[in-house]
Amino acid sequence: MNTLYSMQNSGNSYKCRLISALTQQDLNVINVDPKRGDTRSESYLKLNTLGKAPILITQNNAIISESNAILFYLAQSTSFWPEDVVLQTKTLSWMFFEQYDHEPSIAVRQSALMRGETDEALLQKLEYKGYRALDRMEEHLKDNSYFGEEQPSIADIALFAYTHNAHKGGFDLDKYPAILNWIEAIQSLAHFKSYEWQAALHKEFSNS
Amino acid sequence: MNTLYSMQNSGNSYKCRLISALTQQDLNVINVDPKRGDTRSESYLKLNTLGKAPILITQNNAIISESNAILFYLAQSTSFWPEDVVLQTKTLSWMFFEQYDHEPSIAVRQSALMRGETDEALLQKLEYKGYRALDRMEEHLKDNSYFGEEQPSIADIALFAYTHNAHKGGFDLDKYPAILNWIEAIQSLAHFKSYEWQAALHKEFSNS
Repeated sequence: MNTLYSMQNSGNSYKCRLISALTQQDLNVINVDPKRGDTRSESYLKLNTLGKAPILITQNNAIISESNAILFYLAQSTSFWPEDVVLQTKTLSWMFFEQYDHEPSIAVRQSALMRGETDEALLQKLEYKGYRALDRMEEHLKDNSYFGEEQPSIADIALFAYTHNAHKGGFDLDKYPAILNWIEAIQSLAHFKSYEWQAALHKEFSNS
Repeated sequence: MNTLYSMQNSGNSYKCRLISALTQQDLNVINVDPKRGDTRSESYLKLNTLGKAPILITQNNAIISESNAILFYLAQSTSFWPEDVVLQTKTLSWMFFEQYDHEPSIAVRQSALMRGETDEALLQKLEYKGYRALDRMEEHLKDNSYFGEEQPSIADIALFAYTHNAHKGGFDLDKYPAILNWIEAIQSLAHFKSYEWQAALHKEFSNS
């Protein structure tokens, strides 16, 4: 079985748990808590020298970091990784967009608000960048059901994680009808599990 | 033939030109200059609503944005995209690292210095983040010849683009013997072309 070192309240970790649920793969989930020092512990830093989570340990003991690379691995031989090379390329394109433009504005603004950030210029910059990313998604979803075009792909899972919680970063999705429809479509997929479902079903990390 | 909308002095554009050179694929290169307003022009925004470059138009007219997705496309059926799924996953993992941790510190600090940025706190933050990324690369290269492990992959091309010019962002590579060896190894690949070679061999963008 694959093992995921996962963080609560992390969209990046949720992506990996969600693709496992959607594709009906068992996953051994271990909760790592940065506040408890887990990600700075010696045994964890051996897995990832930057102390980042999530990390997947495959059943053959390969160590995979970066949530979107984990999605790629877990989606092999499922409909979430398309067969056509151009569609594969477009899927990756949306995933690089997610990590460069989307997560660093939408997720980062949410973290900033949660820690009570008072730097107004920073918050405004993140707001501007976040709405630009949402505009681009809306533009695509006007003409396509999914980021995988006709069916959901790992790009949909990557983008869903922080988009459906964008209000927590102060983003108003009411201006984005196509995004709202798409969120509902993802939530209606067979075996879908909600973000809140993450809170249960895991073991705690132990530094040994 | 594939067409690349490319920017001079862009490591992200250089990646795409370099993989084409290394794999001996002809490429129709069109230079877009943001200072001239090219990336804000109506015809360009139709290709990418965020006005980003590079963009690849494939011979079958698919529009691909994100430099690392373009690398994936151009490397299909070449040795730069490994056959083994775990190695493919690790290659993508390094490429997501490149776009999340490496480019936003090492390339962004270079741009900041070039525009005469005076915010010392920002420069220090970028320096800290950039050295953390370089540390992680050094750690890997102590035990592996390439990011593709035994042979160069598109992760090597993605990381080479801004690493070999890291001094322009104020980063001292003398502390990183394994990175310096790896840079030499990439520069020694058959059909390698230098960053400066980009300055030639392109057409100019015309908004029509």
